[in-house]
Amino acid sequence: MLTRLSSEATALSKSHIETGLPVEPRLKSVELPRTTGQLRQAARAVREQDWCRATIDTASNIRSVHGPLGGPVIVFGPNNFPYAFNGVSGGDFAAAIAAGNPVIAKAHPAHPHTSTLLAEAAVAAMERSGMPKATVQMFFRAPPDLGKRLVSHPITGGAAFTGGRFGGTALKEAADAAGKPIYLEMSSVNPVVFLNGALRERGDSLAAELNGSCALGAGQFCTKPGLAIVQSGPESDAFLAKLTELTASTAPGTLLTPNSPKEVEDTVSTLQGAGAEVLAGGKIADVAAFAFEPTLLTVSGDRFLEKPEKLQSEAFGSVCLVVVANDLRQMQEIAASLEGNLTGSIYSDTKGSDDGDYDAIASVLRAKVGRLLNDKMPTGVAVSPAMNHGGPFPATGHPCFTAVGIPASIIRFSALHCYDAVRENRLPNILKNKNPTGSIVRFIDGSFTTDDIQ
Amino acid sequence: MLTRLSSEATALSKSHIETGLPVEPRLKSVELPRTTGQLRQAARAVREQDWCRATIDTASNIRSVHGPLGGPVIVFGPNNFPYAFNGVSGGDFAAAIAAGNPVIAKAHPAHPHTSTLLAEAAVAAMERSGMPKATVQMFFRAPPDLGKRLVSHPITGGAAFTGGRFGGTALKEAADAAGKPIYLEMSSVNPVVFLNGALRERGDSLAAELNGSCALGAGQFCTKPGLAIVQSGPESDAFLAKLTELTASTAPGTLLTPNSPKEVEDTVSTLQGAGAEVLAGGKIADVAAFAFEPTLLTVSGDRFLEKPEKLQSEAFGSVCLVVVANDLRQMQEIAASLEGNLTGSIYSDTKGSDDGDYDAIASVLRAKVGRLLNDKMPTGVAVSPAMNHGGPFPATGHPCFTAVGIPASIIRFSALHCYDAVRENRLPNILKNKNPTGSIVRFIDGSFTTDDIQ
Repeated sequence: MLTRLSSEATALSKSHIETGLPVEPRLKSVELPRTTGQLRQAARAVREQDWCRATIDTASNIRSVHGPLGGPVIVFGPNNFPYAFNGVSGGDFAAAIAAGNPVIAKAHPAHPHTSTLLAEAAVAAMERSGMPKATVQMFFRAPPDLGKRLVSHPITGGAAFTGGRFGGTALKEAADAAGKPIYLEMSSVNPVVFLNGALRERGDSLAAELNGSCALGAGQFCTKPGLAIVQSGPESDAFLAKLTELTASTAPGTLLTPNSPKEVEDTVSTLQGAGAEVLAGGKIADVAAFAFEPTLLTVSGDRFLEKPEKLQSEAFGSVCLVVVANDLRQMQEIAASLEGNLTGSIYSDTKGSDDGDYDAIASVLRAKVGRLLNDKMPTGVAVSPAMNHGGPFPATGHPCFTAVGIPASIIRFSALHCYDAVRENRLPNILKNKNPTGSIVRFIDGSFTTDDIQ
Repeated sequence: MLTRLSSEATALSKSHIETGLPVEPRLKSVELPRTTGQLRQAARAVREQDWCRATIDTASNIRSVHGPLGGPVIVFGPNNFPYAFNGVSGGDFAAAIAAGNPVIAKAHPAHPHTSTLLAEAAVAAMERSGMPKATVQMFFRAPPDLGKRLVSHPITGGAAFTGGRFGGTALKEAADAAGKPIYLEMSSVNPVVFLNGALRERGDSLAAELNGSCALGAGQFCTKPGLAIVQSGPESDAFLAKLTELTASTAPGTLLTPNSPKEVEDTVSTLQGAGAEVLAGGKIADVAAFAFEPTLLTVSGDRFLEKPEKLQSEAFGSVCLVVVANDLRQMQEIAASLEGNLTGSIYSDTKGSDDGDYDAIASVLRAKVGRLLNDKMPTGVAVSPAMNHGGPFPATGHPCFTAVGIPASIIRFSALHCYDAVRENRLPNILKNKNPTGSIVRFIDGSFTTDDIQ
């Protein structure tokens, strides 16, 4: 998709300058292939028409299929993935276009040149494939209310937003009032529960795993583990000591914008104000780049349960709060007090001594998160049909949908289109008696089949 | 399900007294079997686990399935289907329970005794099947803000509402602000377009068909055709004359509540105030029952386009407004000015002379409605997997979902639950390597299959 650019190297260099993200090992060999991979998967889903759930009831001659929303989808991308979640090249873009909608994207102010290059590539692709050029549009800065007007405009089909909770809820309110679907990915502290057996068995290596996951991308991933939960005791004492040592010896990463260090500082202050104690880091880093010291905080379970809202504040940087619960029951209470999150992880020992505790925690955590992980950190969101990059509010705006994973992510930008007694020549091809490709799986009279209707 | 009642006849009689709906041909042989049929279909979907879209990616060991919302679903049923849409026995109830959620239902004030009987039957069924009794709860009247508090309460999983637009949007606002999913079915005028060839070919019979559909259930169906669109000319003159004659000679049906006649009168006044002219009926009926005269109004296309909002007001009774457009282009403009509707119908001649006009109208109407019908009236909502009883706002709150049709209606009351690297013994059975029944269709590595994973 970047064939039109003077060179891929120039583009990567521009993106690096705008975002501070390294060309390697990040932009070139990870994010760019992920982006083109997502676009190719979406294109395949369109060609093979396997995302739209064609359903036919021959006895009543009622047929339905998911189709476009009937108006443009407004896409707001975040600052942290200039390619893979960019409004004009990322996952929401790919899904909205695949469902048959035009897209109007907002270029994120943190990477306007990158967005311009991607928009040019998109327009070139539209031209080559014979689609109307206006299928993709992009705009830059705008007065504060423009976003709200766009997502609620009568001709708008829907919207997607990835970013902070303040901006997301403002857009949600405007879209909701107008009855327009909007898909949001907003805030998540991604709780990680460490059971005692796991800490006993491999506490040091788990501390290293947590610290690594926290510091990845300078802590600017939506799936960064920002909240860990342990039980009070010698195991967690040793774990915290190791984690403190590792955090203190981790070099600060470069943050995305000039405001980032101050924003992280504000959140750390909020956590401290609510009773959390800093064990490592805690200050804006004394380096040339925009940076904040990798930071570890701790708070007791009792204290957490007094101010669960404030102590779930998300810091968009390498900051982790470890909650030390009195016992398993309090761990459950803490899990029950959590807001909706994208992910939740539970670490358990390999021999089975944590099995009962696992069940006790998982039964509470399941309803609070979109993706439940076991002995695995949440950073790293595979583009898989089984992925759920979603979860209950405020992680997203609707618990039924995923932003990552094709074909499931495409359905978000669709409306269910039913045809009742419509003459066959007037039906979309996918609903005609003859399977248009011979290979589309349709749900006909209660069975999945590629057969024609006789 | 009514085995616990003293007798089905007593129940039917109570419902008839409360609602004015006839025992025959309505409550006994149509609505009650529909209700038990829906419950049985939902029960079958639970047993066969075919609604929840199990998806497995073996390479990454990521697995997902739709599961319950994690809190009770609050169900508000409408006045017009005391069994089939009752909060404690109807379609939303069946779907919410099937997805694994407890239900808290509000008994509609228009049929409290019927709702009590159904709630007793539900509790008896819970007891017999070993479910906790509190799985189903019901409440009666409540202070005005209770509904809003319920749908937005932190432990609430979601909500469903079928009824008027005023109450629906108030609940939607409260649920949206709390980030709780809510599914609404609110208002719809269900436009019916009559193309010239069809009127030429069979105008009189189409007038009878429209009048019959309007008067069905005394016009108190959410899919009642309340807006017809024709082109000016001799065909529509004859059609309107016939429709006027039929409407004037149709006996008024009994409305559901003491307030109903006045509410219909208010809407007819709104239509008249916006420029519509009454051709037949128009007054509260001079009969003993709560009733309004079957009413036909007309307005020019020019006038309609001046005040499209007011002229789309829904009257919950046998009232139809015929819009007479100047030409095909104006028909398209009228279709484009419509709000979201549950249904839209297009009547065309059988010989093909309307084919071009059909395409011109259908291309505009498609995005405005959930179900597009061809040469068929919208009343009658088959319980079919391919049905869409849904549509864009304000017909519903989200264009991606249907309230009728199993399994699709069940997915509304679910959250997407992803399991990433979770040990196999900790997975729900449906996601384990072995297909738990051998017959559940799962989406594994890109294919629908009933196979086990090796």
